[in-house]
Amino acid sequence: MQNINQSYTDAAWQHLDQLTKPLRSLGRVEEIAAQLCTIQHTNHPQTKPRSVIVFAGDHGVCEEGVSAFPQSVTIEMMKNMASGGAAVSVLSILHFAKLRLIDVGSLHPKQETIQGVERRLVKKGTRNFVNEPAMTPEECQEAIEIGKKIVREEYKEGTKLLLLGEMGIGNTTSASAICAAILNTLPEQVTGRGTGLDDQAWNQKIEIVKKALAAHPTQNTMEVLTRLGGLEIAAMAGAMIEASHQNIPILLDGFIVSAAALVAYKLEPSVWHNLIASHVSVECGHKIILDDLQLKPLLDLDMRLGEASGALIALPILDAAAAIYNEMATFESANVSSQTQS
Amino acid sequence: MQNINQSYTDAAWQHLDQLTKPLRSLGRVEEIAAQLCTIQHTNHPQTKPRSVIVFAGDHGVCEEGVSAFPQSVTIEMMKNMASGGAAVSVLSILHFAKLRLIDVGSLHPKQETIQGVERRLVKKGTRNFVNEPAMTPEECQEAIEIGKKIVREEYKEGTKLLLLGEMGIGNTTSASAICAAILNTLPEQVTGRGTGLDDQAWNQKIEIVKKALAAHPTQNTMEVLTRLGGLEIAAMAGAMIEASHQNIPILLDGFIVSAAALVAYKLEPSVWHNLIASHVSVECGHKIILDDLQLKPLLDLDMRLGEASGALIALPILDAAAAIYNEMATFESANVSSQTQS
Repeated sequence: MQNINQSYTDAAWQHLDQLTKPLRSLGRVEEIAAQLCTIQHTNHPQTKPRSVIVFAGDHGVCEEGVSAFPQSVTIEMMKNMASGGAAVSVLSILHFAKLRLIDVGSLHPKQETIQGVERRLVKKGTRNFVNEPAMTPEECQEAIEIGKKIVREEYKEGTKLLLLGEMGIGNTTSASAICAAILNTLPEQVTGRGTGLDDQAWNQKIEIVKKALAAHPTQNTMEVLTRLGGLEIAAMAGAMIEASHQNIPILLDGFIVSAAALVAYKLEPSVWHNLIASHVSVECGHKIILDDLQLKPLLDLDMRLGEASGALIALPILDAAAAIYNEMATFESANVSSQTQS
Repeated sequence: MQNINQSYTDAAWQHLDQLTKPLRSLGRVEEIAAQLCTIQHTNHPQTKPRSVIVFAGDHGVCEEGVSAFPQSVTIEMMKNMASGGAAVSVLSILHFAKLRLIDVGSLHPKQETIQGVERRLVKKGTRNFVNEPAMTPEECQEAIEIGKKIVREEYKEGTKLLLLGEMGIGNTTSASAICAAILNTLPEQVTGRGTGLDDQAWNQKIEIVKKALAAHPTQNTMEVLTRLGGLEIAAMAGAMIEASHQNIPILLDGFIVSAAALVAYKLEPSVWHNLIASHVSVECGHKIILDDLQLKPLLDLDMRLGEASGALIALPILDAAAAIYNEMATFESANVSSQTQS
């Protein structure tokens, strides 16, 4: 895809090539620095303050036994995230990132609040998409709008970088169905073991994805999202579209966030410029999405946790890129002799 | 190689497997956490305070035209590191790491000091190993002892993690020769473009390595180090040996640091337990050393800068591992339902 802000990219490389290091010797870290400049329309890339937003939702398809964990874990983990015990909480504190937890569709009773979790409930869980569309078009649109609104709020607060995460037992099944429908792949190629299915349950999950695709034979992106998606996935897609409008870089997490990115990209292709892939997960569908989007992950560490944990583990590479860009001396300023051969 | 502290490893995994995440879903990050526990003999792994030590030395083989940069750059870059303009300076500040710059063998005049650079000079540069041994056995031993002494100083200051880096124009040639001699590989397989040689200069560098190997036909590790090494490489090998005695994890950098690790391992195999590979560089010999040592790099980002920059870019992965280990809730403490299938 064509780079719409080539002048920022060119200026960034001109600067990077003057810094006191062998030419391009920081490899992909320099590429990230140039990408941050391009996305942020700047010659002073910034990664702070940054916002981690975890969207949560429950999935009707859990009726089919597609997860190794009971559905109650969605809410239990939101509480754990809010009280500081989850990976995303620990890593957000470690890396000085603001963490917002947004419940767009958990099964938690509407009246009850969870301290630290913002309730922007569209609906208590999606419908089982083996039988009927997961959402109505209105519900799906509402979730997208919530995602956009949250990012507008963060933009107003001055955020320079968006990290997205999700929580939703059953949502790898939804991501697999979305991925298979949009990319027209076989369900087997994009359906993994999620949080830890055994062989039998895994095969069953593949069958469920096949049934879902048969029940909703469409490649229209909005229809795919509405029928096979999740409320948290729709919200993330909306968040990415808004971030791209605000020139905010988006550090992707794992398979489910990347499925949302695929949706966002299909709805609005210019989103692509803002995407940075943090890692490639163990879930087989993740690599297929990243390859299709031509995104090269920074890390490959056999992770598959979700919650934005992969994005947070890659985050310091972006910090390093920005620091190198902004703080290193040039050959001239430091009086260092430059290359005699090239 | 057998794990000599299996009880710490076992205890670490027992703890990791109780944390609120799908089993082993943080992949290699969990492996790093367990490794830190094992090396540090602890159930509370720590990565702070950490010490970055850059050893500098010049190389007589530069006479043969093996580098894209003039030899004066060794000293110029030490000054740049000391004044905050180099990648290692910027990244050390970013990641709250103490940086020490140790000149064990640059060509800088003995009488002159460089602010921020500690002079523990063994000799002003090595000899050209195409013609004669790079060091005398006494010089080599002195450099090793300096490396050990610096690490003892850091240990007394309470360091929990050692990052090593180097500066020395011409030192990829030395590292290639060491690697070819110890691993008995063809020079072509382990000789790269260094800071940026063109094809002609690269072929010339390979010929120089061949000549050096022919001039010093030995596989004895101490002899290889003495005849083909550099003062900074000897110091780093000493530093690693001492770090292993003090149960300090060693986060390796690129090709040259890894060549020093190969030497340290051959001199004292138990060093292996303390080694963590930060990244695999573009220098072709690096992967060969890591494969031989059976070390899996955390990053593969096309870097080849040296100076400990690769180690510093990977450092936050160790921080994340320690934080996850020490701070995450368990399923029991957080009241999260555990897996129903396994």
